[in-house]
Amino acid sequence: MPRFALIIEYHGAPFAGWQRQKDQPSVQESVERALRRLDASVGAIAAAGRTDAGVHAARQVAHVDLAREWEPFRLSEALNWHLKPEPVAIVQAVRVPDTFHARFSAVERRYLYRVVERRAPLVHENGLAWRVGRRLDVEAMRAGAAHLLGRHDFTTFRSSICQADSPVKTLDALEIEAEERGLAGREIRFRLRARSFLHNQVRSFVGTLERVGAGGWPPERVRDALAARDRAACGPVAPPDGLSLVGVGYPPEFGLPD
Amino acid sequence: MPRFALIIEYHGAPFAGWQRQKDQPSVQESVERALRRLDASVGAIAAAGRTDAGVHAARQVAHVDLAREWEPFRLSEALNWHLKPEPVAIVQAVRVPDTFHARFSAVERRYLYRVVERRAPLVHENGLAWRVGRRLDVEAMRAGAAHLLGRHDFTTFRSSICQADSPVKTLDALEIEAEERGLAGREIRFRLRARSFLHNQVRSFVGTLERVGAGGWPPERVRDALAARDRAACGPVAPPDGLSLVGVGYPPEFGLPD
Repeated sequence: MPRFALIIEYHGAPFAGWQRQKDQPSVQESVERALRRLDASVGAIAAAGRTDAGVHAARQVAHVDLAREWEPFRLSEALNWHLKPEPVAIVQAVRVPDTFHARFSAVERRYLYRVVERRAPLVHENGLAWRVGRRLDVEAMRAGAAHLLGRHDFTTFRSSICQADSPVKTLDALEIEAEERGLAGREIRFRLRARSFLHNQVRSFVGTLERVGAGGWPPERVRDALAARDRAACGPVAPPDGLSLVGVGYPPEFGLPD
Repeated sequence: MPRFALIIEYHGAPFAGWQRQKDQPSVQESVERALRRLDASVGAIAAAGRTDAGVHAARQVAHVDLAREWEPFRLSEALNWHLKPEPVAIVQAVRVPDTFHARFSAVERRYLYRVVERRAPLVHENGLAWRVGRRLDVEAMRAGAAHLLGRHDFTTFRSSICQADSPVKTLDALEIEAEERGLAGREIRFRLRARSFLHNQVRSFVGTLERVGAGGWPPERVRDALAARDRAACGPVAPPDGLSLVGVGYPPEFGLPD
């Protein structure tokens, strides 16, 4: 059966997360339902990142086996037709070899977490960023973030319900950009890159670094929290609204767009 | 009575426009309702731009006279409290002299119109941009736009219900930026600047220029349409979703942020 990778954009708000749940809407269920309108034989699909309730994606990747060949552009158009009016869109479909697996072939996940510093409630970015009412010290957050880079036991920054086999992961990048936007409020963007992440890891990092930026934690406390390997040493977990899965990397032979 | 300017951000979708209407929600009504929670004497407020149904604002400006003095920051905080959960926020309140009038003191209005070129439905930008399924020729649109700059009789680009005294206006700028964003689709931003605009003028410009970008109109047809001074010569009117009032200019003596 021909295999297709689907690059998927979604707004997390109406969903209990990517993964299918009993009695709650999920992105997986919406995409599977659209697929079954085209091909009744479709079973469960796998995705690169099992995003949590309320978390968004600009480039989630899933794969599916279909009973017949499809021109990839026509497949994406047909799926988008059946997905309406849900906030889920197939931005590209790609024909891939049978050796491709959206989750197991992935060699990198990229996340973006958006914070907006301002007093007024968010309007256009409501639900897409975490509003923080105080000015954050970006240099202090960068100093705190530096302790997290590399290979570590990230037990401190892992949800108690995380199902990963090991808490040891390698964080390849945690970059913090700040953009002044006048009355709209300064936007702080946290960009993270790793082969894989633990459950709640990005939101635990950002919530902890916000404490550093607000002056409540010295940057070195991030190092101590990491060394403690204790969930209780973590700062608050940042809300899901600001988080988005923005990219998944695969070996070039699979032919997915970069 | 002390006078205050309010700089207001809103999402246009739930409103029939800025202006108060019978039986339909308006931004004006929402802001006036919040003001009356603080000061029962507040009457009708005036704004710089009477945005249409569905049109957004990043920086609308209105003014109000209050019975007592307020520290401007506390005023904005109190109004935001009462505006919740509506998608309207006071991003700044400014104490202004009695000679300030949000509409009549304004010397410039700035609008932004966002177009996103892509086949997939919009997700994160849904309701905030006009999705166009075809690739537009930006250079052709710029050539068409050049005919609109300066002082003209803009009858062609004016809604039949426009209440302005004269169709003669001066367009100071119509700039077109294009940003490649990969699978998210190219974003085209139309930035317009004038002392004042006619009703539907920006959306008439953008709808007409989209015809040029799509190849349906040669750029010179914009010149001919303008010269016709005939509403029937206009291209289609672009949808409201992409339009936002992003700035209002006042003489510096009033002390509003630029």
